[in-house]
Amino acid sequence: MPAPKTAISPTREVDYPEWYQQVIKAADLAENSSVRGCMVIKPWGYQLWENIQRALDDMFKATGHQNAYFPLFIPMSYLEKEAEHVEGFAKECAVVTHHRLEPNPDGGLRPAGKLEEPLIVRPTSETIIGATYAKWVQSYRDLPILINQWANVVRWEMRTRMFLRTAEFLWQEGHTVHATAAEAIAETEKMVDVYRDFAQDWMAMPVIVGSKTAKERFPGAVDTLSIEAMMQDRKALQAGTSHFLGQNFAKAQDIKFQSEKGGVEHAWTTSWGVSTRLVGALIMTHSDDDGLVLPPRLAPTHVVIQPIYKGDSRAEVMAEAQSLRDEIAAQSYAGAPVRVTIDDRDIRGGEKKWYHVKRGVPIRLEIGPKDIAAGTVFCGIRNQPKSFGISRSELVSTIGTKLETLQSELFAAALHLRESNTVTITNEADFRDFFSTQNEDKIHGGFAHAYFADEDALEPLLKELKVTIRCVPRGDNTTPGTCFLTGRPAEKKAVFAKAY
Amino acid sequence: MPAPKTAISPTREVDYPEWYQQVIKAADLAENSSVRGCMVIKPWGYQLWENIQRALDDMFKATGHQNAYFPLFIPMSYLEKEAEHVEGFAKECAVVTHHRLEPNPDGGLRPAGKLEEPLIVRPTSETIIGATYAKWVQSYRDLPILINQWANVVRWEMRTRMFLRTAEFLWQEGHTVHATAAEAIAETEKMVDVYRDFAQDWMAMPVIVGSKTAKERFPGAVDTLSIEAMMQDRKALQAGTSHFLGQNFAKAQDIKFQSEKGGVEHAWTTSWGVSTRLVGALIMTHSDDDGLVLPPRLAPTHVVIQPIYKGDSRAEVMAEAQSLRDEIAAQSYAGAPVRVTIDDRDIRGGEKKWYHVKRGVPIRLEIGPKDIAAGTVFCGIRNQPKSFGISRSELVSTIGTKLETLQSELFAAALHLRESNTVTITNEADFRDFFSTQNEDKIHGGFAHAYFADEDALEPLLKELKVTIRCVPRGDNTTPGTCFLTGRPAEKKAVFAKAY
Ligand SMILES: [Zn+2]
Ligand SMILES: [Zn+2]
Repeated sequence: MPAPKTAISPTREVDYPEWYQQVIKAADLAENSSVRGCMVIKPWGYQLWENIQRALDDMFKATGHQNAYFPLFIPMSYLEKEAEHVEGFAKECAVVTHHRLEPNPDGGLRPAGKLEEPLIVRPTSETIIGATYAKWVQSYRDLPILINQWANVVRWEMRTRMFLRTAEFLWQEGHTVHATAAEAIAETEKMVDVYRDFAQDWMAMPVIVGSKTAKERFPGAVDTLSIEAMMQDRKALQAGTSHFLGQNFAKAQDIKFQSEKGGVEHAWTTSWGVSTRLVGALIMTHSDDDGLVLPPRLAPTHVVIQPIYKGDSRAEVMAEAQSLRDEIAAQSYAGAPVRVTIDDRDIRGGEKKWYHVKRGVPIRLEIGPKDIAAGTVFCGIRNQPKSFGISRSELVSTIGTKLETLQSELFAAALHLRESNTVTITNEADFRDFFSTQNEDKIHGGFAHAYFADEDALEPLLKELKVTIRCVPRGDNTTPGTCFLTGRPAEKKAVFAKAY
Repeated sequence: MPAPKTAISPTREVDYPEWYQQVIKAADLAENSSVRGCMVIKPWGYQLWENIQRALDDMFKATGHQNAYFPLFIPMSYLEKEAEHVEGFAKECAVVTHHRLEPNPDGGLRPAGKLEEPLIVRPTSETIIGATYAKWVQSYRDLPILINQWANVVRWEMRTRMFLRTAEFLWQEGHTVHATAAEAIAETEKMVDVYRDFAQDWMAMPVIVGSKTAKERFPGAVDTLSIEAMMQDRKALQAGTSHFLGQNFAKAQDIKFQSEKGGVEHAWTTSWGVSTRLVGALIMTHSDDDGLVLPPRLAPTHVVIQPIYKGDSRAEVMAEAQSLRDEIAAQSYAGAPVRVTIDDRDIRGGEKKWYHVKRGVPIRLEIGPKDIAAGTVFCGIRNQPKSFGISRSELVSTIGTKLETLQSELFAAALHLRESNTVTITNEADFRDFFSTQNEDKIHGGFAHAYFADEDALEPLLKELKVTIRCVPRGDNTTPGTCFLTGRPAEKKAVFAKAY
């Protein structure tokens, strides 16, 4: 039996990484640029990012944060002060050494105007923001500082993949300063909860919240919390992190304050971020072999109407399509009007249908003379294999519910995939079996929950199997157990997985 | 008689440039960073920029544009292809030559991993976007392309001033491609009109729309339209530009398409942009010797309530302040709820008052036990010298109107300043007189409308007086006249001014 024809080739089953690239291409989300490792985010992809930004920004503001903007460049000396941080972050970065171009005697241009001190294009802004905060903070009255920045950052990645790992990417970085450890810890928790809520409620992507182990932490952090999601190839993707930095950065950057009692103390800081990687996570969580699948809450367009007509029925059909559009736009979904458009381009109906399917539009409607006569429309919902006829009035009155249903079905499907591919493991043999594969290219494995006693002792095995500890899930460590590898008593249970 | 005490020192009259810096400082808008020429935009300043962005972005989308994102870096070879463009824009720029930091044997770090081809941090994105469009455009069916980008750009400025001229700044750049010259010209006009409407309706800043002369055009443009505003020191500030690029960039970048008739043609392109410079324009248009003055449509906060109490009246006053806030928040202004906050910080009333005055909050309310007893509040409107008592119910019901009135009074005041300092000039003596000053530091001059025959012939005089041609105003050139300098017949009347 031949496989059913799919809009994306290869399918997920055949070649997952290549399927991912093809979905991005077919949905017109982004493309590689001529600048190594940098992508062009195309309008459909950028609208997704704008919707992500808008939702997160509202959540940041609702939790008391304000936005600000700090310089793109970091003096090299700032990085020299923080060896551990540089080791982790700033080694592979873009270095500005000149501030002018001049004509080359052989033709063309050449760099001129050498800088006294090289500047680094920010790979993250901890150091420059910390130096600024050190000037702002004098007294406990200046605290807390609760600031977020939306920005571009650059890390010179050797192997890039659109949205998941690019040299330049877009992100937000929150940087906060507090008078006490307790307040800073509460902030760290609050922001990972914001990320969890955003991932689950907006992206329809179930996540596990937990702490990173010592070896997986952000360089210089005391505690790194993350949200971890399972992609359809059963690999984990870290989708957001929130760091409790203790007094480490405050000491390196000299952020100190006169306390209420009168002494001078170093402050307690946090940082937290998500990036355009979320778009990659969204793609890999929901999309199928026909292309992108968008959760309605983030979809730039909820409903597209395709008028179907030949020559002389055009006026009638277009009038009907417009009145249908207006009625749908008057409906609401998730507290705002339904976003609906008419696609009246002069291209073949089949081509037009697949155009919107591949771009993940949640609901696609067709209306032609026969539908008008019958008082019906033909309706395709992106996660359902078959389109169906429905009375026009019923369609309009249930459009909000249909979007809600799709949003929750996408979440449920992703949760089901994760639950179906999650095991609890208590010994090395099962661990090896779970993470070994007969065929390198095939999808295998998933999330393994297992007790472990000593991170160092695990290292050779994890390295061999290319598995990482994703996190120690929050609230999942109430009873002690036995290390799956050494059999020793263990206090912590972690989630293990192959990861992006 | 001693001068009345002002919150900002020096006053505009005494030292305008220093007054500008002090307003920025007092209003907490921004500060210089430790990176040469780069500023930190603080939360109050960034909220202003966010409001500017939001309003403009809505206008761009309403005129059919979509956002996208292109790489921060431009390969040096792209600039080598466009000599004229580089001459104008890319000479002073940040050049990335290395992609790694490594430990220096003498301690510290040093650049390593030399790039084969240097990368330029974008001073503007014409070249990289053009190279991308060349791939996207094949047929007339692919046109028009109507894309905007919100981004940071870098120009290595030697003398910087916050918001007005900084090495890194934030902006938007629209880049569009069309099949015909007429369409591209219409786009250029449409976008300068968007800028004019935004300046006048949102910023309350009157502007003159016109064409730049050949010498003042964007490098490579066929026509540059700009909006020009008069600051309170009577200098001009170019607040936005819209360029008709003809086929010049399309030829350099090989953007061509199969036309409807069948041949292959080069496309017609435009670009248009505004930047964080608008914040500088806003400051210099409306602020006074007590600090920032914000047009209500862009103010992050419309109304601030200061509860006035001593110890035991706190509960009563706070309850009243909260109910007042809720009633005001239920009112609307410019189609959205009034933005109102309570400032309950534990600082002296006078200090608190001046804090908000200096930050330009449009309306400041005080409410204490006596006001509660009398059913009144004490109200200060930012452009009025005296606060006044008003019945609470009247205040609530007229709050939207008061904001509207303030918005139009600010526009009227700025227009009055411009009209009062605009002259028509017909001979050299008057021109010299208007633009000469007895005292270098004093405010003088303004806008001079004058016919001119030949831009080159004006150059020595303009250079001597440090005057520039701002633009040839649109619709102001219906009848020919006589050149003010040469007495020759002249077709064009321009606005001359000293400028930022
Ligand atoms: Zn210290
Ligand atoms: Zn060509």
